[in-house]
Amino acid sequence: MTDVPKEVKAGRFVRQPNRFTDRITGDGSGPYPAEAGRYRLMVSYACPWAQRSMIVRRLLGLEDVVTLGVVDPIRDERGWRFPEPDPVTGATFLSELYLATDPGYTGSRYTVPCVWDTTSKRLVTNDFPNITTMFETEFTAFHKPDAPDLYPEELRPEIDELNDLVYATVNNGVYKAGMATGQDVYEEAVDALFGTLDLLEERLADRRYLLGDRLTEADVRLYPTLARFDAVYHGHFKCNLRRLVDYPNLWGYARDLYSRPEFGETTDFDQIKRHYYVTHKFINPSGIVPKGPDVDWTTPHDRARLGAA
Amino acid sequence: MTDVPKEVKAGRFVRQPNRFTDRITGDGSGPYPAEAGRYRLMVSYACPWAQRSMIVRRLLGLEDVVTLGVVDPIRDERGWRFPEPDPVTGATFLSELYLATDPGYTGSRYTVPCVWDTTSKRLVTNDFPNITTMFETEFTAFHKPDAPDLYPEELRPEIDELNDLVYATVNNGVYKAGMATGQDVYEEAVDALFGTLDLLEERLADRRYLLGDRLTEADVRLYPTLARFDAVYHGHFKCNLRRLVDYPNLWGYARDLYSRPEFGETTDFDQIKRHYYVTHKFINPSGIVPKGPDVDWTTPHDRARLGAA
Repeated sequence: MTDVPKEVKAGRFVRQPNRFTDRITGDGSGPYPAEAGRYRLMVSYACPWAQRSMIVRRLLGLEDVVTLGVVDPIRDERGWRFPEPDPVTGATFLSELYLATDPGYTGSRYTVPCVWDTTSKRLVTNDFPNITTMFETEFTAFHKPDAPDLYPEELRPEIDELNDLVYATVNNGVYKAGMATGQDVYEEAVDALFGTLDLLEERLADRRYLLGDRLTEADVRLYPTLARFDAVYHGHFKCNLRRLVDYPNLWGYARDLYSRPEFGETTDFDQIKRHYYVTHKFINPSGIVPKGPDVDWTTPHDRARLGAA
Repeated sequence: MTDVPKEVKAGRFVRQPNRFTDRITGDGSGPYPAEAGRYRLMVSYACPWAQRSMIVRRLLGLEDVVTLGVVDPIRDERGWRFPEPDPVTGATFLSELYLATDPGYTGSRYTVPCVWDTTSKRLVTNDFPNITTMFETEFTAFHKPDAPDLYPEELRPEIDELNDLVYATVNNGVYKAGMATGQDVYEEAVDALFGTLDLLEERLADRRYLLGDRLTEADVRLYPTLARFDAVYHGHFKCNLRRLVDYPNLWGYARDLYSRPEFGETTDFDQIKRHYYVTHKFINPSGIVPKGPDVDWTTPHDRARLGAA
């Protein structure tokens, strides 16, 4: 892992396309109908894209509907590994599921999150941007009674637009900065990242959540990057113009979300730090994991003044 | 420069001994009598040990007595280099002065600061801890009329004791943390570093300077590490429990010193960042120089309330 990844071309990180893009359907059309107990979500607590899917699964009460397989936070050249063979699929490495579905898989990484179908014994999807909305829109029959509508029809244009900006400049923006091997490419990514953080800071001055007084998919997508910001992206990915804690609104917002079990209990700072600092030897050859930052995510936030939970 | 330096043994950074330890004398004893214009101080603006000597040279008004040679901030495997051949010594690389003095020099690095004697054409000393006190005690005949006594006899025991702690845990402590290739070695260094910073924070609550209301050698030695702390040591050397700006007293103290030209004008954040991030490829293989942190060293400090300048 000391070499720069294949996804870095001419100094620039270009995330590989997602190989599996099938969709589970709520109306039973197609080969993957929504069924309780049939699908297994594979995640790492380290991975921000995977955390999204864990948060949504819990917010919607799908814990008994979609089971969870969790890989070790530290990857070697063989990719994500289960701490012991996964009891449902029997896999030791996540790669086994990829190769079982497509023996000719040629991606440079095997990624989480992905969803395994225990009936057809295939991966349905590793298309992370669509896994959360799939849970929200295709599993409605299985949502818990008081589940929030995280992706309300009337707000979708605004949510989608915000998500596009947040993905390009924040969620993936930190990777663009951290994986860059060209100074200009790095600086462009950092400028765009902090430009958006500044906008979001302003947006959150008088709104409890990104879309107002209700939690939505937009919050689910922003949070995992904020949770990793000071712990990893600030130092390891050189996103260091400012820290999360230097943004009063964003930092209060992040603690507000962290105080909910769906967000807080899916946030594992130890696994996050070990994953990035140990796995990316091309950025951190020593593999030393920093002790800091010494930050208290449980200090009270005063966000309740801005609206209903 | 991608290999771990030879000074890292069993995961631990052990700074090489200083090869040249002769001393210029104020009383004319020995081969190196203090004389105006005879000696040349070689420095880098990036190097904290060199900055000490530049600060003292200016505080004491020795600019016309000891001339200054400045190397480029970025080193390659040939070591420090002058931007153009040094007009006094003719050297392009600092190594030429080392090898002219000792053709059998076996150190793994050629270090700044060092002092060149233009009469004998030899390096007198690269013994950084003693260069500042040498200026303070052996060049008194050349000090400007209002020069401060930075190393007063009655305070030397306290200054020396504090300097020993600050050297071991802070000045050199950041290097012990950043150069470590063993997790335990790193953590030990970080704990010691922040233990001392916490002590100093408390000490500076009711004293303007480390020894009270007068500036001393102890301040000169602490400042260069503080100036580099958030810019380099926090991220590059993983000294990230807290930042300098998280310590109200230390941060105010650092800005108080920075506002004096002897400290501020010898602080070059651009050279500092480029030196560490580009030169240490074994820590930062990409050589990318972070844009941050976005910190304003010129914001007013309120330290004057604590005592005379």
